[in-house]
Amino acid sequence: MERRFAARLGANECLYGPSPHAVQAMADAAADAWMYGDPTCHDLRHAIATHHGVTPDCIVVGEGIDGLQGYLVRLFVAQGDAVVTSDGAYPTFNYHAVGYGGTLHKVAYTDDHEDPDALLTKAAETGAKLIYFANPDNPMGTWHDAKTVQRMIDALPDGATLVLDEAYIDTAPPDIAPAIDTTNRQVIRMRTFSKAYGLAGLRVGYAIGHPDVIRGFEKVRNHFGMGRIQQAGALAALQDQTYLRAATDRNATDRAALGELLAAHGLKPLASATNFVAADTGQNADYAKRLVAALGAQGVFVRMPGVAPLNRCIRVSVPDEAARDVLERALPRALRTL
Amino acid sequence: MERRFAARLGANECLYGPSPHAVQAMADAAADAWMYGDPTCHDLRHAIATHHGVTPDCIVVGEGIDGLQGYLVRLFVAQGDAVVTSDGAYPTFNYHAVGYGGTLHKVAYTDDHEDPDALLTKAAETGAKLIYFANPDNPMGTWHDAKTVQRMIDALPDGATLVLDEAYIDTAPPDIAPAIDTTNRQVIRMRTFSKAYGLAGLRVGYAIGHPDVIRGFEKVRNHFGMGRIQQAGALAALQDQTYLRAATDRNATDRAALGELLAAHGLKPLASATNFVAADTGQNADYAKRLVAALGAQGVFVRMPGVAPLNRCIRVSVPDEAARDVLERALPRALRTL
Repeated sequence: MERRFAARLGANECLYGPSPHAVQAMADAAADAWMYGDPTCHDLRHAIATHHGVTPDCIVVGEGIDGLQGYLVRLFVAQGDAVVTSDGAYPTFNYHAVGYGGTLHKVAYTDDHEDPDALLTKAAETGAKLIYFANPDNPMGTWHDAKTVQRMIDALPDGATLVLDEAYIDTAPPDIAPAIDTTNRQVIRMRTFSKAYGLAGLRVGYAIGHPDVIRGFEKVRNHFGMGRIQQAGALAALQDQTYLRAATDRNATDRAALGELLAAHGLKPLASATNFVAADTGQNADYAKRLVAALGAQGVFVRMPGVAPLNRCIRVSVPDEAARDVLERALPRALRTL
Repeated sequence: MERRFAARLGANECLYGPSPHAVQAMADAAADAWMYGDPTCHDLRHAIATHHGVTPDCIVVGEGIDGLQGYLVRLFVAQGDAVVTSDGAYPTFNYHAVGYGGTLHKVAYTDDHEDPDALLTKAAETGAKLIYFANPDNPMGTWHDAKTVQRMIDALPDGATLVLDEAYIDTAPPDIAPAIDTTNRQVIRMRTFSKAYGLAGLRVGYAIGHPDVIRGFEKVRNHFGMGRIQQAGALAALQDQTYLRAATDRNATDRAALGELLAAHGLKPLASATNFVAADTGQNADYAKRLVAALGAQGVFVRMPGVAPLNRCIRVSVPDEAARDVLERALPRALRTL
């Protein structure tokens, strides 16, 4: 991924970059990097809590959602415990679940959406400790409305905890996130600065949950894992909601333009609530794979879902204008080679 | 720790700060923080390998030695497995060992030094999976020469792996590190950018070991855990060995001056190979504790060892000239209050 592509559209990064205030805060913190960061992430945690209208003991900050999912699985999953997810959903969650000895049970997507009812049914059947559910979803970009998610929460089997991955919530319509309820021990929500905030390379995520659940992380997390620059950058980004709004507005506009571009070349873009668009090639996985490779040969880095039937699609991060120009030239050339 | 002390001498940070090239590299990388860092840490890993004259597959980079020790314990220690360390040595290692279900066996320091023979004997007795040994040691600052460490390596019981924590090796005499031998599967060495390199707040450490052992980390580590700024800062710091030498020379000078200052006020500084000095108060733990508090009240942050008999000492990071002036004024005042 370090290879310099003409258009880097495979990792769902935010091409607009982070708030200039965040860049400045990180540069300032660099000079102070001889000092350990605050192991409690006090300022950042408190700011996040205020942002969401919860108390600071409902927040844990960690090394990206990836890092937090590792801790969560360690806390909840013992050897042989059942864990439920969707077939084709976030592989890093599966990596942790299997790594800690969990038994993965996967349900299929329904019409390119994660399927709450199927997840609940499978969780009840298997006595699952964790249910992974992303809203909006990666890699398809689809979503469920808040009512549906709340119904899922209300129907959680006893003993199951819902890992509600909201990495892409900031680019989604405002009505898809149910109200945050930190009295519910069965729900832990995960957010990140990697997507809309434009800080993928900083590695800062956080979880929101019941204080007792959040307290559990203190028993397993790398207490000095969040460095000074990370905390400073994330805090400044959070405090610049004006920039975030501008970035998400721009994302919505550019996402629509991306959809039009893909459609103009015969692909079928799925409606997306994220900073990427999954586009149906109308062909099979082999074709999609060849298209990904052909785009790569044209200098455009994109990816595709890993399992059928999702893998008939390619997944393209929302380009800014410059990257869209690159894609616009590359796509017809790539398609002609197939 | 975020409270601003007049002299911050409790966390063994490097008050000289990192190389200006590292500061610049971090500031530059901040603008690129919208992109994920390289999950393989290719450039940094290769530079570290070259630096030590080993192949890159002998190196894993992680979220500080703390993070790497967590991964290592997870790889080596199952429920009930014996783990051996010294009573009073690095508590974060113990945190991980106990956290993963290991049974900790502790041996005493001998004359304020970790005791290789006692560690080996206890490891053989208990069938230990891991032996933790720091050279130089924290919190006492003492060390063993390379011959002694090599004898310890040669005498490791079958089935035991030595975690050789060399966080403070850069400030030590050059002859205390045995030659790196990556053909030995029983030794894993840990190094950090937090101490002599002056990047405690960046969270970058690495382990050196047999390729098969290093490969194990790929099964458990947070693959995107090392952010862009972290990799850039550590790489630039590593590449500025001139600055490192100047910093370690300065540390040696300032360490001697610190010893003299402490001795002038009736404390007995232990010889140190680190960026801190442990000083015997000549009194008991209660006295040392009150001295730490009294120094804190004077604006000087120091710490002390946690267990007897080490806890008759206080531990003071090497101050630069400005911090030494603060300490020089504070110490007699603090002592008078006791």
